[in-house]
Amino acid sequence: MKEDGIGPGQVIRRTGDGALEYEHDELTVEEPLEIRVGDKTVATTMRTPGQDEELAAGFLLSEAIIGSRDAIEKFSRPTPARNRENIINVHLAAGVKPKLNSAQRFGTISSSCGLCGKESIDAIRQNFPPIGSTSIRMDIATLLRLPTELRANQSEFARTGGIHAAGIFDFSGKALIVREDIGRHNAVDKVIGRAFLDGILLLDRHLLLVSGRASFEIMQKALAAGIPVVASVSAPSALAMEFARESNQTLIGFLRPPTFNIYSHVERVVLD
Amino acid sequence: MKEDGIGPGQVIRRTGDGALEYEHDELTVEEPLEIRVGDKTVATTMRTPGQDEELAAGFLLSEAIIGSRDAIEKFSRPTPARNRENIINVHLAAGVKPKLNSAQRFGTISSSCGLCGKESIDAIRQNFPPIGSTSIRMDIATLLRLPTELRANQSEFARTGGIHAAGIFDFSGKALIVREDIGRHNAVDKVIGRAFLDGILLLDRHLLLVSGRASFEIMQKALAAGIPVVASVSAPSALAMEFARESNQTLIGFLRPPTFNIYSHVERVVLD
Repeated sequence: MKEDGIGPGQVIRRTGDGALEYEHDELTVEEPLEIRVGDKTVATTMRTPGQDEELAAGFLLSEAIIGSRDAIEKFSRPTPARNRENIINVHLAAGVKPKLNSAQRFGTISSSCGLCGKESIDAIRQNFPPIGSTSIRMDIATLLRLPTELRANQSEFARTGGIHAAGIFDFSGKALIVREDIGRHNAVDKVIGRAFLDGILLLDRHLLLVSGRASFEIMQKALAAGIPVVASVSAPSALAMEFARESNQTLIGFLRPPTFNIYSHVERVVLD
Repeated sequence: MKEDGIGPGQVIRRTGDGALEYEHDELTVEEPLEIRVGDKTVATTMRTPGQDEELAAGFLLSEAIIGSRDAIEKFSRPTPARNRENIINVHLAAGVKPKLNSAQRFGTISSSCGLCGKESIDAIRQNFPPIGSTSIRMDIATLLRLPTELRANQSEFARTGGIHAAGIFDFSGKALIVREDIGRHNAVDKVIGRAFLDGILLLDRHLLLVSGRASFEIMQKALAAGIPVVASVSAPSALAMEFARESNQTLIGFLRPPTFNIYSHVERVVLD
């Protein structure tokens, strides 16, 4: 028993009938990850350990620091170094120059000149063109199955409720890649990073489902992977909707079967 | 009607009985804010406009860039500048030197040397000592009222569901400051920034309630404001719990009346 009245690994739980119980805590791990490109630190993020290579690759792709799979030669952990498991170094192939001025901060707009939301979109657009036109469409029954499918592929979520999930699905509703992280953006970086490392981008016949809100940056990351449909179980922001409309992306929000909202490019959903 | 089949300001909603309706969308605004200190950009974040001075002040405080209210002389918007409403310049009082090397990124650990979680805590500890011992205690009935009280003070949440809230309460359950933002961290920066600007720190007889998860950085911000109790309606991370235990902070999670969990320093809650 520690001096604060709760022992290591313990939590005091008040139950529905007002009783107090000691339980074993099961919490999501949160540790810093420092991402380096050629020994230069480009970002540090609080993440759930695991799939660090995917996280780094997805981040570098979605920030347009690198653009092709071939740009990455290998990953390494610095040695000797304390906490080497919390540092990942991305080695670029000979001759590849990272576009490092385009992103100096993690999870933020890359800017030092006062942008408005519209200009933020324009800045992203320079790196990632809008989705091309495709005739592929998803039916409602498939769409409504996705949240259950996402949960079926999750490990920690049910235990702690404290972790975000992101999944890439094909239009038949099959889960391709599902990842979890304490950070919303990290979960998305991991799924698109995995696809990037596997050389299967652009994902132009796929859907990204996120467990949290759909913000501007989630749309940006989906666009970087060429994903035409983004669905969220929660709300999108106004800027996310504007981004989606201009990027030719279908944006679905509040996907809570049997209900959902469609905010843009409804033509990719079979409504009748 | 735009080419994507949904008009401006419209959303297609699928209702519980499967019908499709056009509705007016009401989405949370998300725009970038660039924070400058003496004309130098220190951070850019995606935020919901409003209370930008509070957001900037709370950020500078919780990142230990400044330490006292007197350090801030005034705020300004650059002029002339495009999108000046998305830039805020913090002017420091004569002779005040900002500790800018301690934070170059927004919403991330300030590090370029590979930290582990424990070292992250130690780094914060250098700027913010643990909470002092107080005999103040909150009873369960008061604690269980807080989520309802928070919602009663919110404006946008009910409309969109896409916004985070943070509230500072006294130990009688009275809401002192409630703020909303599309970003979890921003909402907390706004409430502690308001208290900081009002000169009422440390808030050592108060509680911080957040609508989302309790991560490491939320605990850090609460500690910067001297807040002894943090409650979250969702899950804490393992590192948040470790931080709370070492900072002499009471951490309450999954506050969903009638249930909740206590993860640290239970002595501030009247359990009997």
